[in-house]
Parts: sequence; C-alpha cells; structure tokens
Amino acid sequence: MDSGYEILAVDAGSSARRGCLKTLHGSVETPIFMPVGTQGTVKGLLPDQLTTLGAQIILGNTYHLNLRPTSELISELGGLHKFMRWSGPILTDSGGFQVFSLAKLRKIRDEGIRFQSHLDGREVILTPKRVIDIQANLGSDIAMVLDECPPAEATRKACEAAVERTIRWAREARAYAGETGFLEKGHHVFGIVQGSRHKDLRQQCAAALIEMDFPGYAIGGVSVGEPEEEMMPQVTMCTEVLPADKPRYVMGVGTPPQLLKMIAAGADMFDCVMPTREARHGIAFTEDGKLNLRNNRFRDDNKPLMERFCDLETGQFTRAYIRHLIIAGEILGSVLLTMHNVRFYLDLMRQAREHIEAGDYARWHQSWIERYLAGKKEIPE
Amino acid sequence: MDSGYEILAVDAGSSARRGCLKTLHGSVETPIFMPVGTQGTVKGLLPDQLTTLGAQIILGNTYHLNLRPTSELISELGGLHKFMRWSGPILTDSGGFQVFSLAKLRKIRDEGIRFQSHLDGREVILTPKRVIDIQANLGSDIAMVLDECPPAEATRKACEAAVERTIRWAREARAYAGETGFLEKGHHVFGIVQGSRHKDLRQQCAAALIEMDFPGYAIGGVSVGEPEEEMMPQVTMCTEVLPADKPRYVMGVGTPPQLLKMIAAGADMFDCVMPTREARHGIAFTEDGKLNLRNNRFRDDNKPLMERFCDLETGQFTRAYIRHLIIAGEILGSVLLTMHNVRFYLDLMRQAREHIEAGDYARWHQSWIERYLAGKKEIPE
Ligand SMILES: [Zn+2]
Ligand SMILES: [Zn+2]
Repeated sequence: MDSGYEILAVDAGSSARRGCLKTLHGSVETPIFMPVGTQGTVKGLLPDQLTTLGAQIILGNTYHLNLRPTSELISELGGLHKFMRWSGPILTDSGGFQVFSLAKLRKIRDEGIRFQSHLDGREVILTPKRVIDIQANLGSDIAMVLDECPPAEATRKACEAAVERTIRWAREARAYAGETGFLEKGHHVFGIVQGSRHKDLRQQCAAALIEMDFPGYAIGGVSVGEPEEEMMPQVTMCTEVLPADKPRYVMGVGTPPQLLKMIAAGADMFDCVMPTREARHGIAFTEDGKLNLRNNRFRDDNKPLMERFCDLETGQFTRAYIRHLIIAGEILGSVLLTMHNVRFYLDLMRQAREHIEAGDYARWHQSWIERYLAGKKEIPE
Repeated sequence: MDSGYEILAVDAGSSARRGCLKTLHGSVETPIFMPVGTQGTVKGLLPDQLTTLGAQIILGNTYHLNLRPTSELISELGGLHKFMRWSGPILTDSGGFQVFSLAKLRKIRDEGIRFQSHLDGREVILTPKRVIDIQANLGSDIAMVLDECPPAEATRKACEAAVERTIRWAREARAYAGETGFLEKGHHVFGIVQGSRHKDLRQQCAAALIEMDFPGYAIGGVSVGEPEEEMMPQVTMCTEVLPADKPRYVMGVGTPPQLLKMIAAGADMFDCVMPTREARHGIAFTEDGKLNLRNNRFRDDNKPLMERFCDLETGQFTRAYIRHLIIAGEILGSVLLTMHNVRFYLDLMRQAREHIEAGDYARWHQSWIERYLAGKKEIPE
C-alpha cells in the first residue's frame, strides 16, 4: 500500500529519519508533532493561529466526536475540515484508548467494544468497521484502526488477548477500508502495534500488521502508566521491525526529551496533550526546562517567555503579565501559554528535521536534552 | 479645562452628537463603546484582535488592578498599556462601584471607603487622592474620580448623603489631579454625576461638578437594579444640564437599544460587560435580537452568526460549530462569541456615528430598535 511517504534524509549517527508524508490535505514534514484537537478544536486556538505557530497537521478524536456532535452531523455539515475551518491534514485517533480511559461499563467482545458514554450514559458500540465509517464521516486524512490498549499493569495473558484482538480488528478494518474505497480515495489508514512491554508480543503484532500492508504504522500502548525506563524499549522493539519506508507514529507521548529520543530510534510522528494541558496549569516549556508561571519570582519579570519567540506578537507578552493572568484566572493566560507550548513543540520538531538533514542529529539531541534537564526545573517531568 | 473634545456634527432630529476625543494614546471617535478589560485583559482576546474588531479605547478597573497585581507593580513594569500590550487609549473606572458590589465589610467615611478585599480579606482604603494615584500608576488616559454609587432601592436620605460625598470627593480628586500634574500631563479626569432617580439631586450633583470644571463627565448609578423605564430619565436629567462641549460617559450600560436611546439623548461613551458576559453564556447579539447558541435549532445551522461579519476570518465559523464548542465546554466557543459580540457593539457605534453625520440618526435608531425587538428573540433583555 502506497503511503505517499518519502524518506528525504537519514541521520548519520542514529536511526532518525527526515521524511515527507502526502495526504489529501497537503504534505507533512516529518518528524512532526500534531497538536491535539480532541473535540474539533485545539484548546482556545484559532486555525490561523495554529498555522502561524507552525502546525502542519492536527489530531481529532473519534471517541469524542462520535459522541458529540456525532460524525453523522459533521459529515452532513461538510466534514471535520470545514466544520472547524482547518484546511491542513487531520489525523484521527480510533477511540480505542479513550474507551479504556474514559468510558464506563465497557465490555470487550471479539466483534468490538460496547460501553456507556461518559457524557450521558448512552450505550455505544465501536466495531472495526464502525470506526472506519466514523473517520470516513469526519473526512480524516489519516485514520486509525480500532485497537485494544491494555494498561501498564495488565497481565501477560491480558496483553496476549489484547494483541490477538488488535490484530483481528486491524484485519477487519483494513479490508473494510479497501472495500469501501476509503483507501482508494487517498485517505491513509494506520495499523496500531500493541503488546505492552513484551518484545515478542510487540513483534508478533507488528509482523501481522505488516503482512496486511498498511500505509503507515502507529505504536500504541506507550505511556499508559508504565515507568519512564520502560517507554523507550517499547518504541525500539517496534521501530526495529517496522518497514523503513512507512511512517511511524508513536501515540500520546511525550516530554520533549522523550520525543527527541524516539526520533533517534526512528519514530516520525507524535501527538500529546502535554503542551496544551500544561498551559492550562500555568506551565511554560523552555529550552532550560519548564517554568511554573504561578511562582512568585515571575511577579515582576518583564522578560518574554522565550526571547527567540518574540518574532510573533503573541510571544511578546511578559512573564509578569502572563503570571498575572494565570493568578487572576483569566483565560488569556492559558491561551498565551498554549500558543507558546504548542509553538515550542513544533519548533523542536523543526530543529530536529534540520539536524537530521545536517546529519548531526545524534550529537545535537543529546546536548539539547542535557541543557533541558540541567535547567532550573521547578517541576519534575 | 480643555477636554481635547471636539463636536464634529449634531443630529438634526435628536440630541445625538458626533465627536472626537483626544487622549495621550490617540483619538477616540464618539459615540463609542469601550470593551471591558477589568483585570488588564478583555476576556480571552488579544490586543491585536481588539483592534481588528474595531476597538478604539478599552476600560480597565481600578478596584481589581489595585488589589491584583497592584498599581505599584504595574507602574514598576511600565504602566498598564505596556503590561497588557494595548497601545490605544485606556479609561479606568474609579473602583467605587466595585467596592459596593464586590467588597465585604465596607465602611464609608467622609475621608473615603475602607473595605475588605474580596480576594483575601485584606483591609484596603480608597480615598479620592489614592484613587487618582492608582490611576496615575496605571497610566490611565481617562481617570474617574471616587464616587458613592447607591443601589436602586436606596432611600432619598441615602441618595442625598451619597451625592454630598460624591461632590466632596470629586472636589478633592480634582484639586489633587491638578496639584500633582496629572491633568497637566494630558490625562483626563472625569467627574461622576450621581443622584439616582431624583432629578433635583442629579442636577445639584451635575452643577457642583461643572463648577469644578472637569474635562468630561460621567453619569453613574444607572443600571444598578432599577426597572428599565427609570434608566433613560436618569440619563436625560444629566445630559440636559451637562456642558455641550464636554464628553458624556454613561457608566456600565447597556443593551443595544438602550445605547441607541442614550445616544439620542446626547450621551457619547459607554462601557458594559454585557457583550463579553453574554458570550460566555453562549449568547450572540444580532440585528434581529439575541441568539442562544445552546438552542437545538442551531445544531445543523451552517450559516455564520451574521453574514455581514464574514469579512473577518473569525466571523466565518458556523453557528453549528460554535454551538458544538459551547455545548462541549470548549473555550474557543466563548472566545468566538466574545469577538462577535464586541464587534457587534463596536459596529453599532460606527453606524450611529455615520447616521449622526448624515443627520438621520433619529429615524435610523428607531427603525434599528424596531427590527431588533421584532426579531425572534429567545432571551428577554
Ligand atoms: Zn490505542
Ligand atoms: Zn460608580
């Protein structure tokens, strides 16, 4: 299956790759971070602002949009791009992860997942086919297959069952996306590798998915409660076996150092609520670690969050002002921090791409991480 | 006292006036609406966005900014304009009204008001001089004197006492603003006419303030709980006697029809939380009355809030999308409605100015109000 993916450069000292992924709504330069727009909006930001901050692709959420306002309504209104006025590519999560983290009374059967909506208790069924239909309704550029994503504490037996189901569902979804013409129209569908911390399960899952020939592959079940030292091995278990010519998307991670390490291991795409969620908690990312704007030392700090981001108007507000907004509970505070943090993540990916092209990614990412960790961090990662 | 105010046109069929008020941070075309930026931010909007929406002048609040982050800190950081990055004129309220509506355990003495902060219980004292000092710290272009603003149900005796104190405090503030050079540097200070529904008290208060020769006059104590039919008479009692060549600012009002009627009575400036507060409640102003976006009928409404506002990107989102954001509790919903409502108020003032210049304001404002009230209104004013 052609993924429209092209590798443009490979780093000399690591497995980092620089690529370009074609979609129905334009190309995406990888490695890339995708700001999270769960409910059809990236918290408080206008689409134009996202573009100005450097966003190339955003993420929407199948679980949430299916419940509200429903994918049928969004389809009737012209699709998710038109609905939210974002003209670039959109990747949609399959909803599997949210069912396990948000929904009540879920029952997993081989046919799919039955659960109660966390909004109104209504019974909802997600099957592999239904999940493709939802994403077709949304007009997703990159759709995910339904998967089962067990928590970190799951037993070996539970992980085996989850992998088995994930493979079965992926096969159904892949066939259905073919039959319905979804793939042929140019939409991508990614398979999701599960298997938790078990190398053999991860590789078994990957092998089965590769056999199905997806346009791209996601690595799921990372950052689901496991200790940090278990995260990276789960990613490398997968990147070692996934095809070199297809994009690799690590779902739902992570901190800036984690992203840089995963890029070194050959990952291409990321999404994470961290920059937007930390913003709402009054926290700004900088190259010297995180700043907690609630800290009294910013009371009279007339500097911007980062000198380098002063080229945009929205980067010119002072720490003292943003601190005032956060303390006063004014939403402009979290809007400005969201803009900053999203830009920080996107800018980090831009730097990563440049250093892969220059061939010095390995050395650069290590010194970047050292400086970040050495900074006067107020907040543990 | 020169107010830097120039009357450019007077309507043929009403007392409406078209003017221009010079300030240290640029000129303001009247009649004008001033978006409310209580805590140094107009809820969720960036200064650039305010300019794009047509804002010429915004309001800051002495009571709030004095408590947090304090006017001394703002002064140290370069003043309120620099702090919030708004380069246009700023009018600051004196804080008198907020003491009466927000503060606990207030004690009014002839020297000033002593109260407990609604934030932390700290004792705060506002005197006529202190209130000028605070506004000088902020760098206000148009400062208000401390006044006493009794509620609608106040007895005649209480209103008499409030007017007496308001006059005494205005005299002290006026003298102090002269002595300290605040006026000479080009800042304006407005006296505030109180007197509730009592014509003789309003006129006694106005006469005393006129004698003190302020650069402009505010009409306070309107919309403090009285029935709507008592609001307009309180305004006309004042506009009848206030000098024709000075700006007249009606504080804290009102609905679009009320603003148009007050302009017909000769008022020039307005501020009101209504457009921003209604936005946070999911309500949009239109020329055919208010829309409650929570209403199910907007579920699949692919039209923008108002065709005429589609020239700006932010006016192009559909009612269905904004409804989705409001129902989902996404802040972009209230940000988009705030932009719309602020623009609606500013655009209404622009139309008023044009019709005063054309000399047909009287007829135009009546037909505007008729259409607005005839619209399928879902929400009573
Ligand atoms: Zn998943
Ligand atoms: Zn007042």
